[in-house]
Amino acid sequence: MEAPFGVRFIVKTTINDIGEFGLIDRIARVLPTSPSVVEGIGDDCAVLRVHDRLLLVSCDMAIEDIDFRKTWMGPDEIGWKVTAASLSDIAAMGGAPLFGLIGLACPGETEAHYIEEVFRGISNAMSRFGAVVVGGDTSRSHGPLALDVTVIGTTTGSRYLRRGGAQLGDLLAVSGFLGQSSAGLHAFEHGKQHSAFRISHCHPRPRIAEGQWLCRSYAVHAAIDISDGLLQDAAHLADASQLGVNIQTELLPVSEPLAQYCSENGLNPLDFVLAGGEDFELAFSLSPKEAEQTLHRFHHEFRTPVTIIGEFTDRWAGVRIDEKETPLRGFEHFRK
Amino acid sequence: MEAPFGVRFIVKTTINDIGEFGLIDRIARVLPTSPSVVEGIGDDCAVLRVHDRLLLVSCDMAIEDIDFRKTWMGPDEIGWKVTAASLSDIAAMGGAPLFGLIGLACPGETEAHYIEEVFRGISNAMSRFGAVVVGGDTSRSHGPLALDVTVIGTTTGSRYLRRGGAQLGDLLAVSGFLGQSSAGLHAFEHGKQHSAFRISHCHPRPRIAEGQWLCRSYAVHAAIDISDGLLQDAAHLADASQLGVNIQTELLPVSEPLAQYCSENGLNPLDFVLAGGEDFELAFSLSPKEAEQTLHRFHHEFRTPVTIIGEFTDRWAGVRIDEKETPLRGFEHFRK
Repeated sequence: MEAPFGVRFIVKTTINDIGEFGLIDRIARVLPTSPSVVEGIGDDCAVLRVHDRLLLVSCDMAIEDIDFRKTWMGPDEIGWKVTAASLSDIAAMGGAPLFGLIGLACPGETEAHYIEEVFRGISNAMSRFGAVVVGGDTSRSHGPLALDVTVIGTTTGSRYLRRGGAQLGDLLAVSGFLGQSSAGLHAFEHGKQHSAFRISHCHPRPRIAEGQWLCRSYAVHAAIDISDGLLQDAAHLADASQLGVNIQTELLPVSEPLAQYCSENGLNPLDFVLAGGEDFELAFSLSPKEAEQTLHRFHHEFRTPVTIIGEFTDRWAGVRIDEKETPLRGFEHFRK
Repeated sequence: MEAPFGVRFIVKTTINDIGEFGLIDRIARVLPTSPSVVEGIGDDCAVLRVHDRLLLVSCDMAIEDIDFRKTWMGPDEIGWKVTAASLSDIAAMGGAPLFGLIGLACPGETEAHYIEEVFRGISNAMSRFGAVVVGGDTSRSHGPLALDVTVIGTTTGSRYLRRGGAQLGDLLAVSGFLGQSSAGLHAFEHGKQHSAFRISHCHPRPRIAEGQWLCRSYAVHAAIDISDGLLQDAAHLADASQLGVNIQTELLPVSEPLAQYCSENGLNPLDFVLAGGEDFELAFSLSPKEAEQTLHRFHHEFRTPVTIIGEFTDRWAGVRIDEKETPLRGFEHFRK
């Protein structure tokens, strides 16, 4: 379309228009790679070859009033949660976290004690899973508290789990219960107290040991952590594996507290289970032949629920619920 | 002091009260360490043992309107500069950068092309010095553009340079000319155009090859990059080495453009040279016996000016100018 005086309208694409994943795709296109990058952008962690060793690295950024609210979470919980998100990426690849670097920006009027408590939460999460904070940078800001947690880890053997390893006919399984973190957010938003959901939302536990165990099991072919919601993360698994996936709602694990909360408040628990993010559980594909025995051993080892919820297929791309397409989405930055 | 009704006044310490370095000291106290952390918080990079190899890691956070202005710098320059700051920490330890991880937060209304250009600047700086971007995280924010660049590198041999290695009687030397980056900031703030200073300010060059060369020279005992201003960074060298340092103003290298700019504008070039930050040159201590030969070879190798500007002493702690104490400071976040 030509405007008067030869001025052409230029359509400007904002990040809101293309979403977080659209942005990452565009960024990835301008970035070169190198032979030492075994896995680059597009999985939970990058996998890097340093001499004859493989490093796993990931970072998670969290911004006040977008990713957390100071009125809902204490500073130590904010620190713990951002760190757990970054550690969970290491868990998804079956690795062991070793070191953390922390970028932090906040106004100069912030109490020093508050920031110490943020770091105490970060350090507690690192220590709990075998890592230590080794450095970082602090900057003044006129804006919201901003935290960036980078974790460096290693593979525990020669193997690591990718998103893109699912095979046709593989089953899809998840650890733990889903939806409690987003139910915690719902409770906060509606001024309700719920201690179990509060823990799920503010003090999530990355599945480090579980990820390493799955990585040692050759029945397990692909994995991802559930940070953006089951639907979205299952779609990431399927897309990376060039397959589709079906999720059977009757198989989905719904915790007793979530069922009760939803019943009391006229809500559908499946909305939380399917689209709620930040559970930091693991979703993984595994061979149907060895599935029963593998999950039995997993449950015996960790006393953590583990549930088969669907299977991979070549009949469609992406994720379907009970073989039907769904308008439900998970969480994506820059899209609400 | 006791207030009425038994309410005690609690004195709250803000980060503005204790400054960036006070905050880092307080944070470092709450953090545990581990045997695999060879050098932790307190040097330019952390030095980490992974199996039998040493990794160098550092991160730099930059916040819009604090560390950069969008009206003064293009998005690619913003990306380049934050990356250069992080790479410069690797240079200060004599290492080789390998990988970068990027945390970025910005409003959803930001143009996608703008963020692509930021990443192009980041990627160009990484590539120029042998590293590649391997991952990152993006988050929506209601606040300023926030960038956190983490660089992972290795030592080039078994040695690396620390801040704390200066010996009594060592000379203090600096690479290049100082003060041009802060003169660039001065020019921006006063609406003046200056192409040389613009390059120094927006497109600084970390001294990666020079740092590796210095690291291989056993005459060189300690090093730091000049990011917060010569005075402050020389004080860091002296403090870490448990010595004092004297800087002789008559020896300080003042570039022709800086001398001219200051003369035209009634300014003192030494203010820029001593207290201006972000030059990303290297300051290092070296043995007086081998100094002349070492610097001759350095200059021959890099065609970069290198200047002896002072010496380390045990007669005082911290930094003095012409043997006198100085009220001048460099840049510190949370103190202005």
